[in-house]
Amino acid sequence: MRVYLVGVGPGSREYLTLKAIDTVREADVVVGSRRALELFQVEEDRRYVLSRDVVGDLRKVIDHCKREGKSVAVLSTGDPCFSGLLKTLLNYNILKEEEIEVIPGISSIQVAASRLKISWEDYHIVTLHGREENRRILLDLVKSNERVIFLPANLKEDVKYLIENGVEEDREIVICENLTYPNERIVRCKLKDVLNLDFSYLVVCVIR
Amino acid sequence: MRVYLVGVGPGSREYLTLKAIDTVREADVVVGSRRALELFQVEEDRRYVLSRDVVGDLRKVIDHCKREGKSVAVLSTGDPCFSGLLKTLLNYNILKEEEIEVIPGISSIQVAASRLKISWEDYHIVTLHGREENRRILLDLVKSNERVIFLPANLKEDVKYLIENGVEEDREIVICENLTYPNERIVRCKLKDVLNLDFSYLVVCVIR
Repeated sequence: MRVYLVGVGPGSREYLTLKAIDTVREADVVVGSRRALELFQVEEDRRYVLSRDVVGDLRKVIDHCKREGKSVAVLSTGDPCFSGLLKTLLNYNILKEEEIEVIPGISSIQVAASRLKISWEDYHIVTLHGREENRRILLDLVKSNERVIFLPANLKEDVKYLIENGVEEDREIVICENLTYPNERIVRCKLKDVLNLDFSYLVVCVIR
Repeated sequence: MRVYLVGVGPGSREYLTLKAIDTVREADVVVGSRRALELFQVEEDRRYVLSRDVVGDLRKVIDHCKREGKSVAVLSTGDPCFSGLLKTLLNYNILKEEEIEVIPGISSIQVAASRLKISWEDYHIVTLHGREENRRILLDLVKSNERVIFLPANLKEDVKYLIENGVEEDREIVICENLTYPNERIVRCKLKDVLNLDFSYLVVCVIR
């Protein structure tokens, strides 16, 4: 029994790889968010929609499939190895490393870089998703005028933290929202402006 | 006239995105290495194989297509925004930012992470491709026991530099070679062992 952890990219079907499509087609059971499952048009009788209890659901479905000898594809937004489900599966001891085969996917970080025509080897990449301790790292980088791409946990709160800890409120930030979706939007503004604007939770930010 | 800069992933066709395939199918002219062009089976009458003079060739083909009003797809190994052709096009003033549309691709960094079951947000990512000055950055990170994924310029020379500048020669390194190709190989060894082993130029290294 094999568990495939499949990166489904930033959101639009166009960014799926052939390998992701083939893997999902051949899996006995496919687990993911409703949105991810719709990308592949997975038939009802072999799909499992994750509830908010992601850890509990993954454990249940994977244990069930192990007992039945069924192969499972677990869908992970973006790239499973960047702020993705790989960590969840390993940290909660749902699976061992050797039980997982990972299929990489396009991360929203890469889509942001492609839109802004920047090379991400020149940037520090920081995720605040479930990693509040990284706020301090982000702060230090921004204060040292390093170039940073970051995934906020709560955009307004994170920006407020930067300003309250001494970052110039007129510093420019670029906010890439809903990348690859029809309502994609790229906003260039000052840090202080972010406090008065509303964004979805699907954002990637760049500070140069 | 539009220039599409298309990420073709690490090497195997499976890692192409649907968007890369569609974009190449619809382009009037496709430019790339022989290996990249073969991934898409581009017809001879609309393909241009890059010679070693990548900059000269790109300038020539793109200028020609501009005059003729033809669309061009430029194929870039991995992700064009990571150690890829985006920088070449911009730094050599072959195109302006607004003339380029970038299609992201899977980087070999991501494939390495997927094979080793690691999350790349926990690693510093350093490329030495054409960036000798980054050796010093790599050295400082390794000496501070930070986790690093790096693309070497010349693996033996780069490792020799680390050892000669005070990194413990028994430090472990993981070398991911020819990722996604049939001769893919993952070698775990000590830094000093690298001096006596031979690898292709397609390598991604990890030091933890």
